[in-house]
Amino acid sequence: MTERLVVIGGDAAGMSAASQARRLRGPDELEIVAFERGRFTSYAACGIPYWIGGLVEERDALIARTPEVFRDRQGIDVRIRHEVTGIDTDARTVRVTDLGTGQEAVHDYDQLLVATGATPVRPPVPGIDAAGVLGVQTLVDGQRVLDALEERSPRRAVVIGAGYIGLEMAEAMCLRDIEVHVVEMAPRPMSTMDPEFGDQIAEAMQGMGMHLHLGVAVEAVETGDDGFVRAVQTSEGTIEADLVVLGTGARPLTELAEPAGIPIGPSGGIVTDRRQRTPVDRVWAAGDCTETFHRISRRPVAIALGTIANKQGRIAGLNLGGAYGAFPGVLGTAVTKVCHLEIARTGLGEQEAMDAGFAVATSVIEASTRAGYYPGAKPLTIKTIAEQVTGRLLGAQIVGEEGAAKRIDVFATALWNEMTVGDLLNVDLAYAPPFSPVWDPVLIAARQAEGAVQDASP
Amino acid sequence: MTERLVVIGGDAAGMSAASQARRLRGPDELEIVAFERGRFTSYAACGIPYWIGGLVEERDALIARTPEVFRDRQGIDVRIRHEVTGIDTDARTVRVTDLGTGQEAVHDYDQLLVATGATPVRPPVPGIDAAGVLGVQTLVDGQRVLDALEERSPRRAVVIGAGYIGLEMAEAMCLRDIEVHVVEMAPRPMSTMDPEFGDQIAEAMQGMGMHLHLGVAVEAVETGDDGFVRAVQTSEGTIEADLVVLGTGARPLTELAEPAGIPIGPSGGIVTDRRQRTPVDRVWAAGDCTETFHRISRRPVAIALGTIANKQGRIAGLNLGGAYGAFPGVLGTAVTKVCHLEIARTGLGEQEAMDAGFAVATSVIEASTRAGYYPGAKPLTIKTIAEQVTGRLLGAQIVGEEGAAKRIDVFATALWNEMTVGDLLNVDLAYAPPFSPVWDPVLIAARQAEGAVQDASP
Repeated sequence: MTERLVVIGGDAAGMSAASQARRLRGPDELEIVAFERGRFTSYAACGIPYWIGGLVEERDALIARTPEVFRDRQGIDVRIRHEVTGIDTDARTVRVTDLGTGQEAVHDYDQLLVATGATPVRPPVPGIDAAGVLGVQTLVDGQRVLDALEERSPRRAVVIGAGYIGLEMAEAMCLRDIEVHVVEMAPRPMSTMDPEFGDQIAEAMQGMGMHLHLGVAVEAVETGDDGFVRAVQTSEGTIEADLVVLGTGARPLTELAEPAGIPIGPSGGIVTDRRQRTPVDRVWAAGDCTETFHRISRRPVAIALGTIANKQGRIAGLNLGGAYGAFPGVLGTAVTKVCHLEIARTGLGEQEAMDAGFAVATSVIEASTRAGYYPGAKPLTIKTIAEQVTGRLLGAQIVGEEGAAKRIDVFATALWNEMTVGDLLNVDLAYAPPFSPVWDPVLIAARQAEGAVQDASP
Repeated sequence: MTERLVVIGGDAAGMSAASQARRLRGPDELEIVAFERGRFTSYAACGIPYWIGGLVEERDALIARTPEVFRDRQGIDVRIRHEVTGIDTDARTVRVTDLGTGQEAVHDYDQLLVATGATPVRPPVPGIDAAGVLGVQTLVDGQRVLDALEERSPRRAVVIGAGYIGLEMAEAMCLRDIEVHVVEMAPRPMSTMDPEFGDQIAEAMQGMGMHLHLGVAVEAVETGDDGFVRAVQTSEGTIEADLVVLGTGARPLTELAEPAGIPIGPSGGIVTDRRQRTPVDRVWAAGDCTETFHRISRRPVAIALGTIANKQGRIAGLNLGGAYGAFPGVLGTAVTKVCHLEIARTGLGEQEAMDAGFAVATSVIEASTRAGYYPGAKPLTIKTIAEQVTGRLLGAQIVGEEGAAKRIDVFATALWNEMTVGDLLNVDLAYAPPFSPVWDPVLIAARQAEGAVQDASP
C-alpha cells in the first residue's frame, strides 16, 4: 500500500526531508506531495542579503534545486504557489489554495510534515505594515526589496534592528550606495554577543558609513500620499526613509499549526521530539517553525537558521523513510560578518549561562590569526565562558578579522563533547605559520579560561 | 633550600618549561639555568622557510623572547653558545663547553630537563656532509642558508625530500627565483598524505615552476674544487646544484641522552611519562627530542613540531614548578601550504589505520569553502577514515585552496573526543554564506563517511 506524505513548505527543512525519505522509499511505497506558497524551492535564504548587495548576481544562484528537478528526478510532486490554509489532524487532511487559480482543494495525508519556516518579527507600531517596510525571510521577500531598489531608487534606508539580518542588510544597502540608518533598541549592536564586543562592532559599522541609532525605539512608520513609507518616528526623533528593512529577527511561523492543535512550546516554535515528531499522531515538524533542544542550557530554543533546518529535515526524512534518525540539539552557533569584521558565537553568553544556573568564569584574550611575523596576520578577540569548579566550557565568542570566525567551530565541537577548558587547551590543533600562531588562539583562550576558572572557583 | 633546575636547549620546549616553572616558583625556591648551544632562544623554527623566502623580513621577528628578557625579567640564567657535552645522572651533573672561550665546566642539577630538539635526517650517501648541503632545523641553520644565498647566488637548488619542510623550502627557493629540483624517493610528494592527494600536490608544485623527481633516490653528493656542493647523483641521473637543502624530516636529537642511560623508545625519541618525566630519577624531557603517545594508534611517535614542544614544555614546567600537569598525547595533526594549495591531516591515514589494526571505511568528498554562490568560494577535498562497525572517526585529510586547511581542527577536536562520524555530522558548526556552505564541508564529509561505514561493515 502506498503511503502519502504531505509536506508544507518547500525550502530547506521540507525538501531535505522529502529527498531523504525518497532515497529510502521509492514512489511505489511513498507518494510525496510538497506545497509551497512561494515560487521557489530549496533556496538559500541566508544568501539573500548578498544577492541584494550585488555580491551574488543571479537570484537563481541561490536556488539549490528547482521544483522541476524534484518532480522529474526524484518523483516528488512539488506544487509551488499552493498555500495550505488549514490542517485537520482528525480527518488527516490539509486544505490548499492554488494561488494561481484561486481554487481550493482538500488533500489526504498519511504523514504530514510541517515545515512552514519563520517570518520576520514586526515591531507592533503604527504603520509597520506599510508598503516599503520589508522583511527578508523568503526569496520572494528578497525580490520585493530588489524591486523596490530598482523602481524607487531609494537614497536612504532605515534598518530596524542590529542583529544578524539587520547587519547583513545594512551592509547590502551600503554596497548599493544607499545612506543607511540602523535603529536598535539595545544599547549596542549584535546583542546576541556579549557587551565587550559592542564597541568594536559599532565601529566597523560606522567605518562603512552606517548611521547607528542605539538605545532608540521605533514608534511609528509614516507613509506618503502613495502609501509608501516616508519616515520612521523613533524615541529620538524622525528619520526620513525611502525604504525600511526589518532586521529584528524571525519567529516561527505557527499560524497553521496552532489552530490545528499542534502544540507550540515556550520558545514559540512547534514542539517535536528528537525524531522530529510532534505530539500529534502522524504529524512531524522541522526547521525554522520548530523549537529545538539547546544542549548547554537544556532549554527549548527557536533558532531560524538554514543549517539547523537542513539537519532537522534530514532527520525527519530518515524517520519518514523508515530508518531511524535523532536530532541531538543545537549549541546556538552563529556567525556573520560586517565589513572586514567577522563575528561568531557558540554555546551560552555570560548572562545566558548565569540565567541557566551556571556559576561562570570568563576570560577575554587577544591573539592573531597567523603567526605574528607571517604576512596577513589579523587580530582577533575571544571570550570564553566556563563553569566554575568543573571548568566545563559553556560558550565562546569571537570577533576579529579574516580567518577569525570559523575558529568558533572548534569551540562548538568541544562544547558538543562537554569538554573542560583544561582538556581543550591540549588538543592537537593544526599549526603552521600561515595558519596559526604556535599556540592557536583557541588554545590561548582555553589556557586563559583555565586560569579564570581557578581564580573564580570558591 | 633552593633547588637547581638545569635545562638543556633554549628553544620552545626548554624555555616554555623554564617560564612555566618560574611562574610557580620564584628564584629563592628554584634556580633555573638553561644552556643553549646556538645564539638564540625561543624562536619559531617553523617560520624559517618564510624568512628564507623573504615573506618574513627580519630574523628577529622569529624570536619570541631573547636571552636578555629571560635573564632580566624572569630570573632565568640563559647561557647561549654553551653546549652540554655530557650528562652524569648518578652524580647529577652536566658537562658544559662555552663555545666562545672553549672552556669546560661541570654544573650540578637537582632537576634536569632535556630539550635538545631534533636534527634534520641526512640520507646516508657519500658527500652528504659537504659544504652547501644544508638542513633547516635551527635559526642558525636558517642563517646558513641565507648566507649561502647571499654569498653564492645559487641559480639552482636541489631539495631532498618532498615532505613538509621540503615543500616549504622548495617554495622559499622559488620565491627567490632559484630553479628548484625536488628529489623524492616515494612515488608522490607529501607521502604523509594518502595517495589520492598526490597528483594535486604535484601539480601545485609544478605550477610554481618546481621540477619534481618522484620515485628517485639520491645516491651521492658531488663537490667542486672548493669543497662546495656541485651536483646530486640520483638513481635517474645527475642534477647540477649550487645548493642542496635537506627536506627529509627530522629525528630526535638523543646523542646526549642515550650515552647517559636515559631510555630511548622505539620511535627514536626519549621516553617520558605523561608528566614528561623520563624513567631516570630527576630527569625530564620535552619537545622534539622525545616520543609521545598517539591517541588513535596508541603507539609512541616522535613528531618534531613547535606546537607539541610548547605544550610539553608547559606540562614539564607545571610539574617542575610543583603543580600537576599531564600531557594527553597527540593526534598527528599537521598543516602546510604549497603555493595556493593548503594541505592538512589529523589522526591516522588509511594505511596507518590498517597498520594499527583497524578495519576501515574511507570516503572522499569535494566541497567548497564558502556557499557556492558567494564570491571567493574555493574547492576542497576531504578524505575521512573511520572504523567499520563502530563508525568511530580515525583520521581526516584535507587538500584545498584558501580557507580549506584549518577545518582540520574540527576533525582533530572530534578525534580527541573519540566521536563517531554519525555524531559529528550533526554538530552545530557555524554557517553563513561567506564562511561555509549550509552543510559545512566537515559535515558533508562526516555524512558521506557514515554511509561508507554502513556500506563497508560486515
